[in-house]
Amino acid sequence: MDCIIAVDIGGTDIKFGKFYGTKLIESQKVKTNKKNKGKYILPEVFEHINLLVGEDELIGVGVGVPGPVVNGIVLGAQNLGWKEIPVKDLTMRKFPGIKVTVLNDANAATLGEEIFGGGQGYDDFVFITLGTGIGGGIIINNNLIEGNTGSCGEIGHLRVGFNNDRLCTCGLFDCVEQYASATGIVISANKLRLDRETILNDVEEVTSKVVFDEAEAGDELCLEIVDLMVEKLATALSQVANTINPEAFVIGGGVSKAGKFLLDKLSNRFKELAFFSVRNVDFQLAQLGNEAGIYGNMYRVMQEINDGN
Amino acid sequence: MDCIIAVDIGGTDIKFGKFYGTKLIESQKVKTNKKNKGKYILPEVFEHINLLVGEDELIGVGVGVPGPVVNGIVLGAQNLGWKEIPVKDLTMRKFPGIKVTVLNDANAATLGEEIFGGGQGYDDFVFITLGTGIGGGIIINNNLIEGNTGSCGEIGHLRVGFNNDRLCTCGLFDCVEQYASATGIVISANKLRLDRETILNDVEEVTSKVVFDEAEAGDELCLEIVDLMVEKLATALSQVANTINPEAFVIGGGVSKAGKFLLDKLSNRFKELAFFSVRNVDFQLAQLGNEAGIYGNMYRVMQEINDGN
Repeated sequence: MDCIIAVDIGGTDIKFGKFYGTKLIESQKVKTNKKNKGKYILPEVFEHINLLVGEDELIGVGVGVPGPVVNGIVLGAQNLGWKEIPVKDLTMRKFPGIKVTVLNDANAATLGEEIFGGGQGYDDFVFITLGTGIGGGIIINNNLIEGNTGSCGEIGHLRVGFNNDRLCTCGLFDCVEQYASATGIVISANKLRLDRETILNDVEEVTSKVVFDEAEAGDELCLEIVDLMVEKLATALSQVANTINPEAFVIGGGVSKAGKFLLDKLSNRFKELAFFSVRNVDFQLAQLGNEAGIYGNMYRVMQEINDGN
Repeated sequence: MDCIIAVDIGGTDIKFGKFYGTKLIESQKVKTNKKNKGKYILPEVFEHINLLVGEDELIGVGVGVPGPVVNGIVLGAQNLGWKEIPVKDLTMRKFPGIKVTVLNDANAATLGEEIFGGGQGYDDFVFITLGTGIGGGIIINNNLIEGNTGSCGEIGHLRVGFNNDRLCTCGLFDCVEQYASATGIVISANKLRLDRETILNDVEEVTSKVVFDEAEAGDELCLEIVDLMVEKLATALSQVANTINPEAFVIGGGVSKAGKFLLDKLSNRFKELAFFSVRNVDFQLAQLGNEAGIYGNMYRVMQEINDGN
């Protein structure tokens, strides 16, 4: 039977999905082998694709990577140790005659959420993933916008402070990722919990989940930490709305498990901070979790097959 | 002969352009009659269109307005005294059987610059007009992006400070417009020139032009004011670039007459403030001046005639 294999290469593991049409029939996960600047990653991906295909007929491969992508070339992926790599060409050489697509990982997840998840029914939305860092992707008029150098939606590096309080991994200060990612929430917690009465001083490990759970349960300091996170994220999202005036924000990633508690706070503060004519924005939770990328990469292959590109 | 009339309705005056094809053969300007909540504006525009058409055959009217537009309906235009007005319908009723388009004024100017001005050759760019306020428009994949509520490109209301230093006309604080528009530059000048030795204390009227001219001539305080303006505008543009990763910024409006002096400073500071993968952006001057809107509105009519919409 005809199948598409979608691959989502991450810094920790690589996810694979085998699809009949748009139906996921098998998914697998392997550790990312980052030795020697990631030189084994693609060969191992190719091998795994062959295993997954089995007796079926491979008609397309969709690859997602954690870095900017232009014309199928990954410009660099720090988490993998990669410099510029022509992923599309290398994959096509390995699987001649089949359709190959390459997407940035956040963009793939955005496309997945558009077609099968929290973005369904919206023509224009912004997907934001709150995980270890913050990533994003943008749909305008039902199209994924990738940007001039494959870097649309770098929402995590919007600047939300001017006091040089927190140095970001990107080398600049006060990026929203330093406040509103899982990592950022823990940074806030560890800065603020000293000398304060809070349940955080009694837990084994401070995580963003603990902070949100305890905020909901009424811990005052945890509420303060959540409010700081919301203030910074709402500020960043108001900048995005002032720029592209979307219909909806779709929020995913580990931190989004805080659900309605987070969404309500975020939406309320956003409406106060955005320009009056762009305030009317829906806030939705992402629906596909870790599988968003797999679905998006599969869908991009289907799109290109149908368009005859 | 077939002609298109383009109209650019502003808070001070209304510009008209008569086109044979894309060739501007006559342009006129009349004062905007804002009496009675602007109820005379459209009737006077229609009358003027008839005068301009003369013996020619009118095939299209393209109207630009200073407010958000969705499906030909102006949602409101404070400068005109307008609430919601169905400009497209009203114009079509007056000129039955001809093509009518309605665009936000900044969007019309963006389209004008795309086809005939500083945006030529770019697939993705952001137009920013630095005048009394700051407006903007966005081209992605050669298409004008208008936004869910007709408010794409509200660049002037990006937030570039968190100390509530300057209240903006929009009701929020520290919008970039309060620092980098002609008005904002004069505010900075008047705040900073007290107790300072500067040529500004000897001029008849402090304007953004005087500040830029004297900064170029070496006045220390004027340089400080320009640097503050550049810092704030570069901050705002870095947020835009982190979001949509454009190829170019095209800078227009009265303040852009400062030319290369402004562009070089802006581009240099922008490259320091933007995320590393979106830094490679061209800075261009707009080329059409006050006629950008006329050209854009004409072009939108041509597009719709050619698309058969």
